[in-house]
Amino acid sequence: MLKIGLLGAGRIGQVHAVNIVAHPQSELVAVSDKFDDAAQNLARVHGAVVRTSEEIIADPAIDAVLIATSTDTHADLMEAATAAGKAVLCEKPVDLDLKRAVDCLARCKPHGKPVMVGFNRRFDPNFNSLKSAFDKGEIGKGELLSITSFDPAPPPVSYVKVSGGIFRDMAIHDFDMACWIYGELPEKVTAIGSSIVDPEIGKAGDFDTAITTLEFSGGRMAVIKNSRRAAYGYDQRIEFLGSDGLLAAHNVLENTVEIITRAGATKAKPEHFFLERYAKAYQIEWNSFIEGVEGDTELPVTLQDGINALIVAEAAALSAREGRTVDVAKEIPA
Amino acid sequence: MLKIGLLGAGRIGQVHAVNIVAHPQSELVAVSDKFDDAAQNLARVHGAVVRTSEEIIADPAIDAVLIATSTDTHADLMEAATAAGKAVLCEKPVDLDLKRAVDCLARCKPHGKPVMVGFNRRFDPNFNSLKSAFDKGEIGKGELLSITSFDPAPPPVSYVKVSGGIFRDMAIHDFDMACWIYGELPEKVTAIGSSIVDPEIGKAGDFDTAITTLEFSGGRMAVIKNSRRAAYGYDQRIEFLGSDGLLAAHNVLENTVEIITRAGATKAKPEHFFLERYAKAYQIEWNSFIEGVEGDTELPVTLQDGINALIVAEAAALSAREGRTVDVAKEIPA
Amino acid sequence: MLKIGLLGAGRIGQVHAVNIVAHPQSELVAVSDKFDDAAQNLARVHGAVVRTSEEIIADPAIDAVLIATSTDTHADLMEAATAAGKAVLCEKPVDLDLKRAVDCLARCKPHGKPVMVGFNRRFDPNFNSLKSAFDKGEIGKGELLSITSFDPAPPPVSYVKVSGGIFRDMAIHDFDMACWIYGELPEKVTAIGSSIVDPEIGKAGDFDTAITTLEFSGGRMAVIKNSRRAAYGYDQRIEFLGSDGLLAAHNVLENTVEIITRAGATKAKPEHFFLERYAKAYQIEWNSFIEGVEGDTELPVTLQDGINALIVAEAAALSAREGRTVDVAKEIPA
Amino acid sequence: MLKIGLLGAGRIGQVHAVNIVAHPQSELVAVSDKFDDAAQNLARVHGAVVRTSEEIIADPAIDAVLIATSTDTHADLMEAATAAGKAVLCEKPVDLDLKRAVDCLARCKPHGKPVMVGFNRRFDPNFNSLKSAFDKGEIGKGELLSITSFDPAPPPVSYVKVSGGIFRDMAIHDFDMACWIYGELPEKVTAIGSSIVDPEIGKAGDFDTAITTLEFSGGRMAVIKNSRRAAYGYDQRIEFLGSDGLLAAHNVLENTVEIITRAGATKAKPEHFFLERYAKAYQIEWNSFIEGVEGDTELPVTLQDGINALIVAEAAALSAREGRTVDVAKEIPA
Repeated sequence: MLKIGLLGAGRIGQVHAVNIVAHPQSELVAVSDKFDDAAQNLARVHGAVVRTSEEIIADPAIDAVLIATSTDTHADLMEAATAAGKAVLCEKPVDLDLKRAVDCLARCKPHGKPVMVGFNRRFDPNFNSLKSAFDKGEIGKGELLSITSFDPAPPPVSYVKVSGGIFRDMAIHDFDMACWIYGELPEKVTAIGSSIVDPEIGKAGDFDTAITTLEFSGGRMAVIKNSRRAAYGYDQRIEFLGSDGLLAAHNVLENTVEIITRAGATKAKPEHFFLERYAKAYQIEWNSFIEGVEGDTELPVTLQDGINALIVAEAAALSAREGRTVDVAKEIPA
Repeated sequence: MLKIGLLGAGRIGQVHAVNIVAHPQSELVAVSDKFDDAAQNLARVHGAVVRTSEEIIADPAIDAVLIATSTDTHADLMEAATAAGKAVLCEKPVDLDLKRAVDCLARCKPHGKPVMVGFNRRFDPNFNSLKSAFDKGEIGKGELLSITSFDPAPPPVSYVKVSGGIFRDMAIHDFDMACWIYGELPEKVTAIGSSIVDPEIGKAGDFDTAITTLEFSGGRMAVIKNSRRAAYGYDQRIEFLGSDGLLAAHNVLENTVEIITRAGATKAKPEHFFLERYAKAYQIEWNSFIEGVEGDTELPVTLQDGINALIVAEAAALSAREGRTVDVAKEIPA
Repeated sequence: MLKIGLLGAGRIGQVHAVNIVAHPQSELVAVSDKFDDAAQNLARVHGAVVRTSEEIIADPAIDAVLIATSTDTHADLMEAATAAGKAVLCEKPVDLDLKRAVDCLARCKPHGKPVMVGFNRRFDPNFNSLKSAFDKGEIGKGELLSITSFDPAPPPVSYVKVSGGIFRDMAIHDFDMACWIYGELPEKVTAIGSSIVDPEIGKAGDFDTAITTLEFSGGRMAVIKNSRRAAYGYDQRIEFLGSDGLLAAHNVLENTVEIITRAGATKAKPEHFFLERYAKAYQIEWNSFIEGVEGDTELPVTLQDGINALIVAEAAALSAREGRTVDVAKEIPA
Repeated sequence: MLKIGLLGAGRIGQVHAVNIVAHPQSELVAVSDKFDDAAQNLARVHGAVVRTSEEIIADPAIDAVLIATSTDTHADLMEAATAAGKAVLCEKPVDLDLKRAVDCLARCKPHGKPVMVGFNRRFDPNFNSLKSAFDKGEIGKGELLSITSFDPAPPPVSYVKVSGGIFRDMAIHDFDMACWIYGELPEKVTAIGSSIVDPEIGKAGDFDTAITTLEFSGGRMAVIKNSRRAAYGYDQRIEFLGSDGLLAAHNVLENTVEIITRAGATKAKPEHFFLERYAKAYQIEWNSFIEGVEGDTELPVTLQDGINALIVAEAAALSAREGRTVDVAKEIPA
């Protein structure tokens, strides 16, 4: 039974708390948050105690920490926790600054503790099935990967300003998916963006709609479509054309009911947002973390994976800014 | 090139006329109809001449006739045409009276001319694919066949009164499908009916909604659902459970467009009625008739098939009337 | 916080145990089972104690019992528990014998304690959405309800022999669905059955494949298709034709992935069996029970509902045996 | 009744011939082809005569010509035909050379005769429904258009060499779709390409797989995915994200049959290639041409539309070559 300290009691911390508690081999012993109320509430529901992040990291009785704090604290906390001998599951992104993320890896590595980055979509049963089918050769050689990733509604502009931009904040999930599926970093990145959903987002220097194309070795390609607004909900799909066929992972719908009238045949729309769509993915993610830590095997998402996704995001931002293709190896030194 | 006489220039006669004309091996030479206008119009469009049914049948230069007149004339015309040495394609049903249909077969047979009954649904590419997949063993042994057959709107009560009732007029197509798919007549028939769509239909002694179950040899079953009204259009589907799986033929939709909004994901409704849904089936039916006549091979739907469907209809009507299962071999002497 | 005693630690008892434990207002305090090992295992996992059913029922500190024992003990346990002042959630069926079930209701009622029968499918989010849409008038007046209910594989013949037969054991869920959706008992029941899946089931006096038609007031109808074997998994669907359209609840698939190759476009098959398909339904069922007991409001499924489903099962069995329609009010005295 | 001369009796000429003959207001009177056999065969089937292109264009009794010859003859024939007072329907592209196409427009225009370019996809009932739904405002403001356009198999390298390349030969249809849907030329074009399907295509200086992004006014975007090979058939889909929802036009499948077994649920694959998928579109295209010519109204696709698609193709080819975004107005002078 692993004793877990949860750093961060916000929305995503609460999701993780339930999975920690429900897992037969993990126990939630302590919770920290910069807002005391949030920490107290979450601790009470799950029978844990409230402590500071420093206390949790310093406690030798705690085996692992889950970092669900604000992005700017991720790298520091990972470094402190690994130095204190703890296994770590840290929410994405590692940091908004690529150099800081690279340093973090360099500092964590020597401690030899398992560190996993929370790219939850890799654990979605649908995307996972697609990846497995591809790895089994169902469509032959992969040629053209296509990811649709739309949020239901744009975040407030105040959030956009500190988010690192659509590529580092939102598309980073999709960049990780593409690198994971192809098994490597792209060689070239080309992106375009606009702020057609909300001009205020444009004034804040960001895009709300973007298309990124990735060129992998051997002429393999990917295209990622992002929008901050899909009126009908969270649109999360993948298509993958290969030499022998096409793989597609469709949306998860709210239910299976269909109503057919003179007006047409209407089914439910997709699950509203990530908490609904990826509920199961978060659970499997936690199971995988525990399995890796307990079994002393490699974790399915590494700190290097977190850095790779940042590299692509950096390249996409540069490409969209300058209207040209970016050569990843030459221009984004990691 | 076969010279064809078309008896009947109504809605369904017009559909057939186009297919006769379009086929490279058939030529529409003459048209008859009890309404002279209808015959004149159709003949003009296709460059044929108007004659009486008797003249057409008597003309040795005409190779085949297509009978698309009112039901009460079918048997007489088939007998006259075969006696005159013509191949015949006759619209369903053979007759509303089973005995008359049986006599018709007895009288036509000795002339040795090919006679085909127009069960158009057998030629629908979807139902045909289902049948082929079943015959190829895709679902193993057939066990439970389920046919959904709903019209978009009930006919006028005046039509209902002369129609022979829902089983002989409408479900007869589905009875033929079931016998065709299983390759035999059912042993037992049980039906229930109500007039929930239009009470006037009930007052006319008929049903507008009915469910018929058929028991075939070896414990194999079928169920047929009929309604005179599906607000969303013509609902024509088949499902077939077998020992190794399920076969389904879904509806043909008006188009492939989907609109996804806050209100859900809406696709087109099914094609409106038989002229749209079975346009291709009528064309393939005609091709099959020509192929059989030209190639001197057995036609895919025989007069006996027309009689078999009537036998089931007769049994269903009796069952619904008496609230009990009908033993086909014992109670419906054909 | 309600203290719960769980009677029965088998497969379905284990499903309920998890939901009892996970609910913030219920606590699993005691478990009984005729097999001591099963009880010990389940109690250990959830931190409960093992006791006999009698002890649990006699303990005034226990507020409610969940009865998940073998069918022949249901009625006795319900009577004892309500007499001891406990709220009860009892798995279906109430009893295989209709008279016994009616007596049970008569004996439980005077104690005034809430009793709910575990018709889990009413809580399936898909079927529930269908029912809500119908109640909101989305398809106008209901006319023809169609339920497909196939198990993935037949049970052993030893089970079949004590099961009460396909109508009381399996179709009873579907009979409850039909009565629930239409809001009344049918007036007439007609059923056919065969043992095409496994002749041994026939030798045991039961069917493995059956079709039941139900006639409700006003000419409204339902048809239920049952098979003990669908090679592709658990097939659980509902279609409902109304005056303004059609409602359908489709199967829940294992995932949303599609593979398109020369061989066609392949999606996942339905969830394998009831534990997977109805996992969420069992959870909502328990929530509804707690909500009703805590809120002192009427429970969504009553003991009378359990009896009604048995009445239809009795009628179906009689109809299939005698090859005729059964008049429920006249022939099945409840 | 318009008298039509058909220039070109190849595969696509034969498709048009059937539609010309079937239309009640057009009559196929003459056919030309550089291969005499092809012209003779087609003429015989439809009762037309064989003549040279020059003779057809010179004949004052012929009202309109359909140009279905090789691409390099399109512009000359259009100029000659309009000069001779004929209405023209010309297959795409106008020419492989943008300047030649622009000259063609300049020379045809003064004659004031209707000229239509055969962008058949605009007439596909599915894409047409999508466009209509968009124009009616079903998804609000259009933001991100996505076109999937894969051929079933690559053409021979010998064809590739004279084709003008994937952008001018294949993607040109998709460029036309995007301009048609948004109602304008894009401002910027960015494309990437590879020859992953067949390296020989790469050696011939062309791509077989490409992704093009288009930036329209106001931040509106489109992305077009092209591949010369989809093993499962012709993949032709459109998705359009707007401020209020998503519009999608899915593929047309070979039939509606589904087989569900332990291996999953398999439907038919898409229609194989353009002759099957766009059979109806070609028919509607011809109807629209006749309607425009007879009614003296503007034709739905103009010569300028043909030029616009070429402009985008030119920009895409340049972008892919140089690895940068191309500014259409500045860099592609038309």
